[in-house]
Amino acid sequence: MGFNRLMEKVKQRESVVVVGIDPVIDRFPAELRDSDASVKEKLVVFGKAVIDGVHDLVPAVKFQSAYFEAYGLEGMEALKALIDYAKEKSLFIIADVKRGDIGSTAEAYARAYLEPGSDFEVDAMTVNPYLGDDSNNPFYKMAKAHKKGVFVLVKTSNPSSGQFQNLIIDEKPLYKHVAERIVANEYNDDPEFSLIGAVVGATYPEQIAEMRQVMTNNVFLIPGYGAQGGKGEDLKTAFDENGLGAVVNSSRGIIYAHEKYGMSTEKSSRKAASAMNEDINKWRI
Amino acid sequence: MGFNRLMEKVKQRESVVVVGIDPVIDRFPAELRDSDASVKEKLVVFGKAVIDGVHDLVPAVKFQSAYFEAYGLEGMEALKALIDYAKEKSLFIIADVKRGDIGSTAEAYARAYLEPGSDFEVDAMTVNPYLGDDSNNPFYKMAKAHKKGVFVLVKTSNPSSGQFQNLIIDEKPLYKHVAERIVANEYNDDPEFSLIGAVVGATYPEQIAEMRQVMTNNVFLIPGYGAQGGKGEDLKTAFDENGLGAVVNSSRGIIYAHEKYGMSTEKSSRKAASAMNEDINKWRI
Repeated sequence: MGFNRLMEKVKQRESVVVVGIDPVIDRFPAELRDSDASVKEKLVVFGKAVIDGVHDLVPAVKFQSAYFEAYGLEGMEALKALIDYAKEKSLFIIADVKRGDIGSTAEAYARAYLEPGSDFEVDAMTVNPYLGDDSNNPFYKMAKAHKKGVFVLVKTSNPSSGQFQNLIIDEKPLYKHVAERIVANEYNDDPEFSLIGAVVGATYPEQIAEMRQVMTNNVFLIPGYGAQGGKGEDLKTAFDENGLGAVVNSSRGIIYAHEKYGMSTEKSSRKAASAMNEDINKWRI
Repeated sequence: MGFNRLMEKVKQRESVVVVGIDPVIDRFPAELRDSDASVKEKLVVFGKAVIDGVHDLVPAVKFQSAYFEAYGLEGMEALKALIDYAKEKSLFIIADVKRGDIGSTAEAYARAYLEPGSDFEVDAMTVNPYLGDDSNNPFYKMAKAHKKGVFVLVKTSNPSSGQFQNLIIDEKPLYKHVAERIVANEYNDDPEFSLIGAVVGATYPEQIAEMRQVMTNNVFLIPGYGAQGGKGEDLKTAFDENGLGAVVNSSRGIIYAHEKYGMSTEKSSRKAASAMNEDINKWRI
């Protein structure tokens, strides 16, 4: 299914790095930021420069929907243009939207991101588990029909993620109950990598190891590397014996590398992605 | 703050009904559905007809983002046009988006829906609690700055909502822990109605009563009336002694009332909203 395609790309490019495209115009290089271009043009020019820089080095890009929604209709137009551009570059595309709603509404969200031909069609999307199976199943069903993937939030990377996710029920934290539900789900039936993946933060390495034990054929999307504090070493338990089964996102650390390296967005994001590949592959292979 | 404005409108219109605009073109009256209009035009014509029908009978409308995202860019353009139209009609506007993400990303979502001047600016939005306080605080902060409101999912209306929300931690279900966090939050400090509200499903009347005890000055957004099975009687414990403190959403039962009454969208949604007002006010006042 969808995540087998992602793992093929990981093997081809010898990389598990997902480049997160979270554009904030104020942080763009001054020449672009202060230009007369429209908001949409600025977002598209910047996103394309990142994609040009990294497309042959990494298997996937992740678009964080919030940063496009924040720019209103122009932001949404830019999102569509960048999804289309990433497709041309044959990247695996993840929409980080963290949607979740009652069944009929979840179906509509699944159509928005996983149905072939929709404006925002991608290869995989993130979803929130708080509403339970009848909220998540419409995403799995659509993913199965169209060979897509779904990453469910299990243990998120933010400081307060433990407030609810770590509460103990029957001697197990909530996030483990969420993981067990995923494992038991009827759509979790692929002999290779499941169409259901999990978000587990790089900032909580012990939980990554714990989740790897529970979720043996589920691909992990690991945020929190770089700007949020996660390191390559923290990830060594995330991978299976073939160095597969997980991808690691970095957003700000790659797309704003021009602040560190003083080069163009294309060159600096390439350099940062390359350094991240090297850092993680040390622990992975 | 924001929800005091909503309660003012409840008093003015003697109604707690929120009309949920969840457009599915296949369910539109045949004349519109089969017309040559563009997707955007169909969505706008339909949404305006609903708003024209109900605007003086109800305090608020709620746009379910999924049904607009599912129509891609045209859907998003229609959403903006309908938000603008509902503003002209001086309705309180809720964006049902159920967002939730790490702090920096939550800030971007807050800008998208609560910052004055943004394309999708509304009066209140729904958010998901799974990531904890540092995910929800950016929404509260933006709401405080601009007199807006935030509804947090506490106990949702769908059949599987109990899978995680009802898990027992220290003798209390998870949803009660979520409620207590809201009550303890630093932004929950308004002497009248708090800027933090809660989503509690009409399909779980016992939980509505229980949550009313815990959350005394938080406005409830109650989905699940009508198509999902909730009834007026189920809501009698939701309101305070003045018949305030809660609003009740119906989407399909109002906007597709043409299927039942055989009248225009404007007339049938008016009739359905009026009947719902009567049903709920019996138990409310």
